[in-house]
This record gives sequence, structure tokens and C-alpha cells, in this order.
Amino acid sequence: MAELADLGALDMLATWDQLVMMPSGGAEARANQLGALAQLAHERATGEEIGEWLAALEVAQLGDLDRDIVRVARREWERSCRIPADLAAERSRAHAEGQESWRRARANDDFAGFAPALERNVGLARQYGECLTQCGTGPYQELLAEYDFGLETAMLRELFSALGAALPPLAEQVRAHSPRRQLAVPVDVQHTAVRNTLRRVGVDQQGWRLDVAPHPFTAWIGRSDTRLTTRYSDGNVESLLSSLHEYGHGLYERQIDPALVRTNLGRGTSMSIHESQSKLWENHVARSPAFAEVLAGELEGAGFPLAPADLHATLTAVEPSLIRVSADPLTYPLHIILRFELELAMIEGELAVIDLPAAWHDGMQRLLGVEVPSDAQGCLQDIHWGAGSFGYFPSYALGCLIAAQLWEAMESELGPREEDLRRGEVGPIKAWLAEHVHWYGRRLDTIPLIRQATGRSLDIEPFLRYVAPLAARTP
Amino acid sequence: MAELADLGALDMLATWDQLVMMPSGGAEARANQLGALAQLAHERATGEEIGEWLAALEVAQLGDLDRDIVRVARREWERSCRIPADLAAERSRAHAEGQESWRRARANDDFAGFAPALERNVGLARQYGECLTQCGTGPYQELLAEYDFGLETAMLRELFSALGAALPPLAEQVRAHSPRRQLAVPVDVQHTAVRNTLRRVGVDQQGWRLDVAPHPFTAWIGRSDTRLTTRYSDGNVESLLSSLHEYGHGLYERQIDPALVRTNLGRGTSMSIHESQSKLWENHVARSPAFAEVLAGELEGAGFPLAPADLHATLTAVEPSLIRVSADPLTYPLHIILRFELELAMIEGELAVIDLPAAWHDGMQRLLGVEVPSDAQGCLQDIHWGAGSFGYFPSYALGCLIAAQLWEAMESELGPREEDLRRGEVGPIKAWLAEHVHWYGRRLDTIPLIRQATGRSLDIEPFLRYVAPLAARTP
Repeated sequence: MAELADLGALDMLATWDQLVMMPSGGAEARANQLGALAQLAHERATGEEIGEWLAALEVAQLGDLDRDIVRVARREWERSCRIPADLAAERSRAHAEGQESWRRARANDDFAGFAPALERNVGLARQYGECLTQCGTGPYQELLAEYDFGLETAMLRELFSALGAALPPLAEQVRAHSPRRQLAVPVDVQHTAVRNTLRRVGVDQQGWRLDVAPHPFTAWIGRSDTRLTTRYSDGNVESLLSSLHEYGHGLYERQIDPALVRTNLGRGTSMSIHESQSKLWENHVARSPAFAEVLAGELEGAGFPLAPADLHATLTAVEPSLIRVSADPLTYPLHIILRFELELAMIEGELAVIDLPAAWHDGMQRLLGVEVPSDAQGCLQDIHWGAGSFGYFPSYALGCLIAAQLWEAMESELGPREEDLRRGEVGPIKAWLAEHVHWYGRRLDTIPLIRQATGRSLDIEPFLRYVAPLAARTP
Repeated sequence: MAELADLGALDMLATWDQLVMMPSGGAEARANQLGALAQLAHERATGEEIGEWLAALEVAQLGDLDRDIVRVARREWERSCRIPADLAAERSRAHAEGQESWRRARANDDFAGFAPALERNVGLARQYGECLTQCGTGPYQELLAEYDFGLETAMLRELFSALGAALPPLAEQVRAHSPRRQLAVPVDVQHTAVRNTLRRVGVDQQGWRLDVAPHPFTAWIGRSDTRLTTRYSDGNVESLLSSLHEYGHGLYERQIDPALVRTNLGRGTSMSIHESQSKLWENHVARSPAFAEVLAGELEGAGFPLAPADLHATLTAVEPSLIRVSADPLTYPLHIILRFELELAMIEGELAVIDLPAAWHDGMQRLLGVEVPSDAQGCLQDIHWGAGSFGYFPSYALGCLIAAQLWEAMESELGPREEDLRRGEVGPIKAWLAEHVHWYGRRLDTIPLIRQATGRSLDIEPFLRYVAPLAARTP
């Protein structure tokens, strides 16, 4: 387990380096290096001797922690053993080729050029899910389980259908308002403000880095070696949101019980919980009226004075749009609901790949009320399906829902956070998250963790309460 | 072989990152990650199945390249199989602890505190060398072989004794001159000059990085991903020398025959040849009167005008001193000769660890004519013995000798480089080195490579011809 954890950290380091530091000439060698790591990790994770170890451990007297380690190890080992080596190898090839095909297709707005690769990925994903299917779970639920163990397709259908009914009227309400405003803040001002804001919430030089990456992400190379990335543009203040979003990911990994380090439990439990941690800092801290005072103060300190209310209005402006990654906090989940519906239909064989553009068109009209002018700005905008990632999208919307639910639970225990946030005081938030969410690592899966932290299962009401004022506000 | 090459590259990446990018909090996790890599690489390199593969390959019809791959693989596999796993593990522990002990001892000028760790390292090194000894090679030669296969202890004794007799009178000659002058050039000027100089010799953004590190080194992560480091100080212009020194290491790895990539032959053949490549660029390019015009031009372009002759005088000033890493090009090998004599005597049991400080004292007096005021500035100055590296030091002096010999061979083939260097034209030098040295990778060991490139075995005359003018020059 320790060795696998170490190999995982090296993989993250090599990936971080590739995206942040590596000269472009290193790409070919890096692909080989990452391939060698993946191959070794796969070999070690699926060794036949593991079955014997597990059988021996399952009849041994173990403490609670060791029992959890063995339980999760058994689950993962059995899943990996059910995948034929041929299928695993063919999937990796198909995903690498699919990404290339997607890149070309998007650049040329050529869905037909991408369709064969997508068809292949869908077929392989279905086959993969079928290998894992037990007791009628079905292939989509098994794909979901790769990112979020224990989530059920039926539950997502229900949640997303309720959300897909509740949000469009709110988005419609906003249409009456003026369009989103952007603030033009010089990059060096943003840079200083981001550094100082992060320093306030605990990002020090001993245990963190902050770098620039075209698509911001976070790497946790060690418990005290967290690497955030963000991006800066003169035309907007996305860096303020994105850096706190990434901070949420980083903080989660740092606050896991140190006893879990180098075990199979020593990392975030699922994609949706991870995304809930980033969304909590993005939506509930960075986008709060109270914290806007802190952010505006930092911008002012860096030479760009503005009213906190204006900054807050910019950070929370709502406007239905075409592109997921730049969507506002209210309409963002609608982009995900569309993707969930479509990928589920493709995996279940109810939507042919060739019909995807038309289905996308209809869905954007129905959910967001926008016209899709091209596939490049439509179903070709995301890399995920080209890379063979089916069942990943839901975590983005679940993260928004879970963040809202955790935030309400936290405020009902600690009281409103407004006064603290106005002063930039986030210590109690970090402590509450550590105790109720982070500490467990992978000992609790998504739904048990939510129950444990909030006293009930996942529901959409807290999120609807969070977005209501965004829709109601007149600009 | 490809997998081992990939693991080696990941090790280099993780080490580079640790020294250049990693926040200090990552140290503990990084030690585990590097440990896991080393463990895996060792396991893969010593697998019993390799013996069967080699036996089958040795009776197969193979081309020249494949025969070389098998020959070197056989040699390394047999060496690694002769080391008991216990001994290997105990050495790693002793080396890690020895480094820590050395660090404390140096900080407190406390040789007695370091002696037990050094004693342990010497004992383990001797034992290690004895496991490998065959046909009377002896333990020291086997330690040497870890860095420089094929070098013989007797040959080094002979070379170093001749060099140790020839250099002190030259150093004595310099004593009459005024002391070394340092140039105080602002760090930002050096920074610009270094970047521009490196760009002239071919360092582009697509395939190289240049960063700052307290102890400059080079990492070759991929054939087109070379990472140089240097350091800057207001008080001297060491960065000009150090950056070209590191460039020499980097260029070597980039110009190896691409057919050798991801084989066991696809890297520099030995420590001494590697060091010859860095020393060639440091001593024969950066320290030449002709290239001083280029360097002075770059400093001037960055806002610091000075006469090329003054810069050259600074870069080549000679003054016997206490510390190896800041020694001048003439006296540098004397520091190495002392270390060679002492480590050989310790491994052969002719010098007790406890007598090391006195022997150091005597040697510095005899070879460099300087008085050693403390062990911290004496036998505690280098990390190598604390880290268990015996047989490594000679490569530093051999590099100087080989560089001079290669330079003469190159000039006798291409004609004097002076005119080209004055214009910063290094293309023919790079091409000559590629053809005669770099291309071979590990297909030729140190001595055969020198013979092949220069027509004779290693000798000290070219180096003596190189340093004579440095000693004769009046400041």
C-alpha cells in the first residue's frame, strides 16, 4: 500500500511537472515515464499474492483502521481482477488516440471526424462497465464507481431531474437583468491579491506552491507539499475564484488523518467530495458578500481600489451561456445535467453517437435556453469523452450540491460565518471541515460521509437556497 | 531496459524537483518516493529471470548494438548479483545516517562526532568492494568501477602522482603574484548575461530549463528535456563558469545516438567522461581569452561594461586555497589528489579514520602549501564520504585531464578555435564532441572512448600545457 501510494505521488509529480515546468521537448519521454509508472502500479496492485494476503487478513484480529484498509483493498483488488488485461490495454490506447482525435476535431469543428473515436470509447467503456456489473448495478453505475464508489445511477437520475426542473426557471428570471459584467484588473494586481489572499487562509512557503497553468489544477505530492495552480487574464478576475477553488482541493488532502498516510485510505474519498471541497471555497467563501470585502481589500492593497459590492456582483453574476468551464454558479449544474443525460444514454445504447450533436442542441435549448452555433462550442467543448472518462461529469454538479449542504450543516453548528469572513477569519471553517469531512480519508464513501457530516443523505434543497438570491438580485 | 531507463528518469525528475521546486515540507514524502523508486529499480535490475534472458541472448544472432546492450547488461547484472541484499540495505541506511552526521559535524567543526559514521561507511565500502573483487582488482578499484568502469587503481596512482609532482611548482610560481581579484557584478546583470550566453550556444525554451540551485547540477529528464541550474552572487561571476559547466553535462546527454534511448547504453558512459564535458566548456571555452570577448559583450549588453581582458583575468586567476569547490583551474586537481590518496588509504586499511584530520593537514601543506585552520574547512568540507561515496572524487580531476586532451585532439583536427570563439561560434565544437564522444553513450567505457577520440590513452601533458600560461601570467 505504501509503495502504491508512493507511485501515485510520483505520477502526480510527473503530471504536475509536465503541465507547469516541463519544456515542450520533454513530452515524448514523459509519456514513456508515465507509462512505466502506470504499468508498474497496475502490476503491483493486481498481483495474485494480494488475494492470499487479503484472505489471511480477513480472518485475523485487526483494529478498526486495519479493517478499513483491508476492506477497501479487497474491493479494489476484486474490481481490478475482473478487468481482462487486453481490455485495459486497449482502453489506454483508445483513450490516448481519442484525445488526439478530439483535439483535431475541436480545432476544425468536425464532429464527424471525432465520431469513430467516440464510438470506440463508448463501446469500450460499456464493455468495461459490464465486466464489473454485479447484482444488476449496470455498466454506467460501475463507471461512476471508478470516481465515486457507492453512487447509484437511479439516485443521480432523481437528483438531476429535480435540479433540472428547478434551475431553469431561476435562470429565466435572470434574463430580465443586464448581462454579466467583467472587471478588467491588471494581471500583476491579481497576482499580488491572489498571493496575499492565499496567505491569509494558510498557504505558506514551507508547504505550498502556487504556479500558473492554462487549466488550473492542484497536485498533492506529499501531505505537506501541495501545489496549486491558477491562471490570470486582464479581462476578468477568475483568478480570485480559481485559486480559492484549488485551495479547497489542496486543503482536503492536507487535513486527512496522518495515520492514513501511505495507506490506501490516505487520500480524498471521491471526485464528488473533492469537488465539494473546492466548490465550498469558491461558492460559499469567495463568492460571499462578506469575503468580497477581504478580496476587494487585497485588490486595493495591490493598487486597484473598488467597492466590495461591485466585486461581489461581478463574482456572482448569472447569465446562461454555452461553455461549461466559464459558467456562473447558478447555471453550472445545468451543463452537467446535460452531459449526464447524454453519456448515460450513450452507455445504455439509447443514444447513437451520430445523434449526439442534435441531442446536445435540444438539451441546451431545454435546460439553458441557448442556441448552439457549432459543435466546437457544443458537444466538442470538453476533453472527457475523448479521453474515455464516462461517469466523471456528475461529480462537478454533485460537488456544488454537497458544498451547499455541508455549508448549511456547518453554519447550523458554528453559527453564521459572515462576521468571521468579513475579517478573513477561516480557522473555524477549516477546523470543522477537518473534523467532519477531511479526517476520514477514504474510510467513508461519498454518501456515508455526507450522512455523517450533515445528518442526512444528499439533497438539492441547500443548493437551491444558495442560488435563489443570485437569481433574484437585480444588478 | 526501457523500464529501468524510465525509472531512472523519474528519479532524476524527483531529485531535480526536490532541489529546485519542492517546498521544504515535502522532504519526508519525497524520501519515501525516492526510496520506492530505488527499491523497484533494484528489484527489476536484479530479477533472476534476467540471467535466463542473457543466456539466451548470448547465443543468439545479434547486431552490433544489441550485442553491446547484452554485454553491458551482463556486466551490471553480475555485479548486482554479487552484492548481498543485507549489505545493500545496510549501506543505504548508513549513507543516509552518515550524511546527517556529517551535516552536524561540519556545522560544529566536530570531527570526533563524525568519526564513527565515517568508520562505518569505510567498513561497508570495503566490504562492498570485496564482494565485487575478482582477479585481484581489489576493493578500491571496484568502488571506482561503480562510477567509471575499467579504470585501474594503479593507473590513477601513477597519473595522480605525476600530476601531484608537476602542479605544486606551478602553483608556487603564482604565489609571487597578487591575490585573485573578484568582480562585483549585480545579480540581475549576471542573470541576463547567462541567459543570453546560453541562448548563443543553443539553449532554447523548447528543450531546456535554467533554474537556480544552491549547488548547481544538471538533470536530463528526457533527451529533449535538459534542466540546468546555476547560482548567482553579487560578489563574483561564478555563474558564467558554472552555467557553461552544467551546459557541458547537458549537451553530452542530448547528443547521444537516439538509437540508444531507453536502452542501458543511452546515457553518459562514466563520471570522468561526464566531468570532462563540463570541464571542457568551463575551462576551454568559458575561460578562453577569445570567449571572454563574448562574455564581456553580454555583460555590457546587460548594463555592465568591462574589458574582456579584465574578465578573462578574473576567470582564470590562480590562488591556492582551502576549499575544493571554489578552487581555481590550476590548483583544483591538487584538492582531488589529496582526497584520492586519503580515501584509497582508508579503504586499504592504511589510514585509520581517527588519523584523517592530521593526514589532511599534511597533505594540504605538501600539495597546496596552505595551513588548514579547522576540520570544517578541511576534511569535513565535502559530503561525499559521509554519503558513502568512495571512488567518486577521482572523476573530478580526470575530467580536467580528459577535457584538455580532447580539446587538443579537436583543435588538431579542426584547427584553433580562437577565431570561432571570439564570435561565439561553437557549432563545430558541438559537432566534433557529438561525433567523437557523445554519440557512443555507454558503448565505450572511459579509456576506450579516450583512445578512440584522441588516438592515445589518458595522459597529463595536455592539461599541463593548458595550465602553464595560467601560472606564468603576471596579473
